[in-house]
Amino acid sequence: MSLTKMAYKFLPEKRSLNGEEMLPHWALRNFGLSGDTMVSFIGDFKVPPERWIDLNSIMHGNNLPDREMLHFVVEHFGCPLQEAVLRQYVLISILEEKLLHRIKVNGHRLTRLGDDLFDGENRLSVTAAGSTLVSAKIHVGVFTKTPGEGFHGIEDYRVNPEELAEVVMCQYGAEMRRLAEKAWRVKPIL
Amino acid sequence: MSLTKMAYKFLPEKRSLNGEEMLPHWALRNFGLSGDTMVSFIGDFKVPPERWIDLNSIMHGNNLPDREMLHFVVEHFGCPLQEAVLRQYVLISILEEKLLHRIKVNGHRLTRLGDDLFDGENRLSVTAAGSTLVSAKIHVGVFTKTPGEGFHGIEDYRVNPEELAEVVMCQYGAEMRRLAEKAWRVKPIL
Amino acid sequence: MSLTKMAYKFLPEKRSLNGEEMLPHWALRNFGLSGDTMVSFIGDFKVPPERWIDLNSIMHGNNLPDREMLHFVVEHFGCPLQEAVLRQYVLISILEEKLLHRIKVNGHRLTRLGDDLFDGENRLSVTAAGSTLVSAKIHVGVFTKTPGEGFHGIEDYRVNPEELAEVVMCQYGAEMRRLAEKAWRVKPIL
Amino acid sequence: MSLTKMAYKFLPEKRSLNGEEMLPHWALRNFGLSGDTMVSFIGDFKVPPERWIDLNSIMHGNNLPDREMLHFVVEHFGCPLQEAVLRQYVLISILEEKLLHRIKVNGHRLTRLGDDLFDGENRLSVTAAGSTLVSAKIHVGVFTKTPGEGFHGIEDYRVNPEELAEVVMCQYGAEMRRLAEKAWRVKPIL
Amino acid sequence: MSLTKMAYKFLPEKRSLNGEEMLPHWALRNFGLSGDTMVSFIGDFKVPPERWIDLNSIMHGNNLPDREMLHFVVEHFGCPLQEAVLRQYVLISILEEKLLHRIKVNGHRLTRLGDDLFDGENRLSVTAAGSTLVSAKIHVGVFTKTPGEGFHGIEDYRVNPEELAEVVMCQYGAEMRRLAEKAWRVKPIL
Amino acid sequence: MSLTKMAYKFLPEKRSLNGEEMLPHWALRNFGLSGDTMVSFIGDFKVPPERWIDLNSIMHGNNLPDREMLHFVVEHFGCPLQEAVLRQYVLISILEEKLLHRIKVNGHRLTRLGDDLFDGENRLSVTAAGSTLVSAKIHVGVFTKTPGEGFHGIEDYRVNPEELAEVVMCQYGAEMRRLAEKAWRVKPIL
Repeated sequence: MSLTKMAYKFLPEKRSLNGEEMLPHWALRNFGLSGDTMVSFIGDFKVPPERWIDLNSIMHGNNLPDREMLHFVVEHFGCPLQEAVLRQYVLISILEEKLLHRIKVNGHRLTRLGDDLFDGENRLSVTAAGSTLVSAKIHVGVFTKTPGEGFHGIEDYRVNPEELAEVVMCQYGAEMRRLAEKAWRVKPIL
Repeated sequence: MSLTKMAYKFLPEKRSLNGEEMLPHWALRNFGLSGDTMVSFIGDFKVPPERWIDLNSIMHGNNLPDREMLHFVVEHFGCPLQEAVLRQYVLISILEEKLLHRIKVNGHRLTRLGDDLFDGENRLSVTAAGSTLVSAKIHVGVFTKTPGEGFHGIEDYRVNPEELAEVVMCQYGAEMRRLAEKAWRVKPIL
Repeated sequence: MSLTKMAYKFLPEKRSLNGEEMLPHWALRNFGLSGDTMVSFIGDFKVPPERWIDLNSIMHGNNLPDREMLHFVVEHFGCPLQEAVLRQYVLISILEEKLLHRIKVNGHRLTRLGDDLFDGENRLSVTAAGSTLVSAKIHVGVFTKTPGEGFHGIEDYRVNPEELAEVVMCQYGAEMRRLAEKAWRVKPIL
Repeated sequence: MSLTKMAYKFLPEKRSLNGEEMLPHWALRNFGLSGDTMVSFIGDFKVPPERWIDLNSIMHGNNLPDREMLHFVVEHFGCPLQEAVLRQYVLISILEEKLLHRIKVNGHRLTRLGDDLFDGENRLSVTAAGSTLVSAKIHVGVFTKTPGEGFHGIEDYRVNPEELAEVVMCQYGAEMRRLAEKAWRVKPIL
Repeated sequence: MSLTKMAYKFLPEKRSLNGEEMLPHWALRNFGLSGDTMVSFIGDFKVPPERWIDLNSIMHGNNLPDREMLHFVVEHFGCPLQEAVLRQYVLISILEEKLLHRIKVNGHRLTRLGDDLFDGENRLSVTAAGSTLVSAKIHVGVFTKTPGEGFHGIEDYRVNPEELAEVVMCQYGAEMRRLAEKAWRVKPIL
Repeated sequence: MSLTKMAYKFLPEKRSLNGEEMLPHWALRNFGLSGDTMVSFIGDFKVPPERWIDLNSIMHGNNLPDREMLHFVVEHFGCPLQEAVLRQYVLISILEEKLLHRIKVNGHRLTRLGDDLFDGENRLSVTAAGSTLVSAKIHVGVFTKTPGEGFHGIEDYRVNPEELAEVVMCQYGAEMRRLAEKAWRVKPIL
């Protein structure tokens, strides 16, 4: 049978996100992961504004607290930008689903508004997707500890970030494979 | 401002789904809708097997009850198959979300398995996506009345199919537009 | 109905063309115009040679007088280079047509040679088209005042640059929309 | 130097246009012309409605007089539909220009409305562009003799159809080559 | 690590090649092989001329003896025609190499002319590549027994067709994987 | 007939390879060659590691002797990376074939392992392929003199590098043209 497997890895050591993660082949250069990859780790969001890629944030500011997050960094080779934003949708939808299954605390209302997850008025996540000359890159981060007003961290739900990382990566890889395989069994419409 | 609007329409008269809906320009030829379109209507699933497009169903059979469904038929021009299966994911995820908001009956557990929605063991939906020479087509159908064992209809949830159709189409159009607009504001990664 | 609208804007203040206009998202960063855009303004041509993008000019020199022009700067997202040079053709052909309609002075012979407009032996325009990682960019400039021998300015024809800018932008947007819509109603040839 | 030449041929014998001309490889199968090709001939327009490819004509009728035309049939391999409608624009714009140069009769006002050429209220031309699985096809026809009210033929201008055919084909080939070559000398914008 | 594996299978029963093998999903429908696939079998070449896909053979005839061949049928999804003819080159080059390694008889001179293998003046192979709406298909056949003058069969070299089939399929799969993986580790040139 | 000719040139003066050869339009800027081009010359391999493009070499080192090679530098416009690695395969396979024809010394065993040519255990060649924003670039180099243990130079075979360069370039151009022309005569599979 034909196989398309993404390589994925959780980095046990904490490290800050500094923006270099969005460069092409970051996972290959640093961790030897080849092809379509997904890397997850925990650390502060320290991306300087000149490395932000969404012009909305750049132009209108982005008062993001400089606090610890669980990060996902994805790379898809040969993937046009329009397809990348659709894959980003899939990743965020998986993250939402896995969080919903793990929230045992009552009174929390998790919703997705565009690309961001919210608990009521409080934002849980940030995300960006962009194109390099050879690949598309996706970043999603969710606060681990609630970093202040207007935001919410997943540890308040008693969610274990590392366990969450593993199930999200595993499910994303499975979904990417399922979607690729669908295209192999669809009759042309003539 | 740049606009990308899908044309959408709910057909108030009931009509069976016979498979011709998946041909290119069906919405243009029959309802004068031009460009990327979404049409919804209620009627029996009467697609003969030679018009099925997913070889999985064709090869392994598909004991689908020949019963009334709420149908969504989508056409995207200039859309590769791989991108179409990603858009199909978005549509099913919107349908799931809108159903969850409307289900007032306790004890129901709506889940998505691959491309299909289930209530526990009972299947609610069917779907297919395929390519014509000029466009991609997506079909999603959900049972209105529960058609027998192993299946579940949305009227058991006291969901009004027509109202559901309107909100799903409206949300899908908004999501497609949001995803198109994202690609307009992403800095190249160099 | 499906809509595809370009955003366009005439900048009333004079400003020099310095080459930054060809960078991706220039219209979004500076004027908040999103998606496919067209911006027009009047000002001197001050693009330093290292920012020229046509290697013909770079290699063979380009004794362009450093004088005032009416500029058009276009950006199309997700547009391959080959398609961009075809759209550039459409823009120049519209400019030629609108100029012809407005020339009331006898004895002028407006012709297009390749991508450039001439009045007899005298050149009226410059143009370039190129690719960024996310979009294609087109520039067309026409001299307002005749800047010296071998060149010709449109004010000699008593053409109002601002009015010309408006009709050219409006017609280009209409033509782009018409060409997009044509692709929505063409039956596959099987 | 790199060369991209279209093969072109004028067929001296009259023959009706029956719609088969739009099938892929028509010029190869019938005249041994290989690659991107352009064939011109004179004959009646006898395309049955089921072979029309523009759904506008199919849906709203097309009271085209069944009369003699000068036909151009173009094939471009590996050419997406969106690019084909842009090349069709170039072809019609060349035809308009070459006609304008040849019209010696006063009082004629040649204009282009969308894809059609008009003399005042009277239509001179028909056109269609479409996709096969391997190529794009373009047809343009201009009436030779005025076929009745609302239409206009080029022989009223004392234009020789065969001479017109030769110059249009030669110019179209030169323009296609020029546009291809431009893409070879454009610096990336980074 | 990311994996891209082709599914391949040798069919032990003899069967004629009748042209249906070039339809999309032939390997999925008949042998349950999914994704990019390669199937090999031994049998007569019985493709009727209306199913030939190379217009050269169709137009100029193809006096192919109706005799037993070792066949290879390949399908690549989402593969443009231009890329398919390059992959066909790789397959023929592998076949040539594997034959060269196995020929123990002196006096044989195996050469490739275009897409065909020859022993001196005698042709060993036939091949074709083409596009479906969802995939590209490649066929290569080599005569097992020498079928008459001007042709040559591989059993004259004491080559075992089944063993040859296995090594060619294995090597082609490895080469396709190697070429895919190369594209994952190439830095953009900026 | 339609023509697609690559421009090619052997540079009679020796010059080192310094990595700038892989930039887009290098052949146009330096030698006035336009379109798809191939340039060959003899000189030392002096590419500093920061200009290497294959991350395998960058990450695992590449103890390449800094010695004279016969170089081939190819540029294909509008060529995706995946297609470029397939064209690189064709180039190396032609080089192998032309070397085999010219080796008159007994006891040499020329083989291809992946993208590299070997004589027994000794490596003859290096190669890389990559993408610019407008084109794909391919480099292949073969040692002229044997530069030390583990390597092998073609002058030991009494092969004349300049004559080899000419036949390889001529054959590569012919093969590229043949492969392009094949795509013009293949019937769609419906």
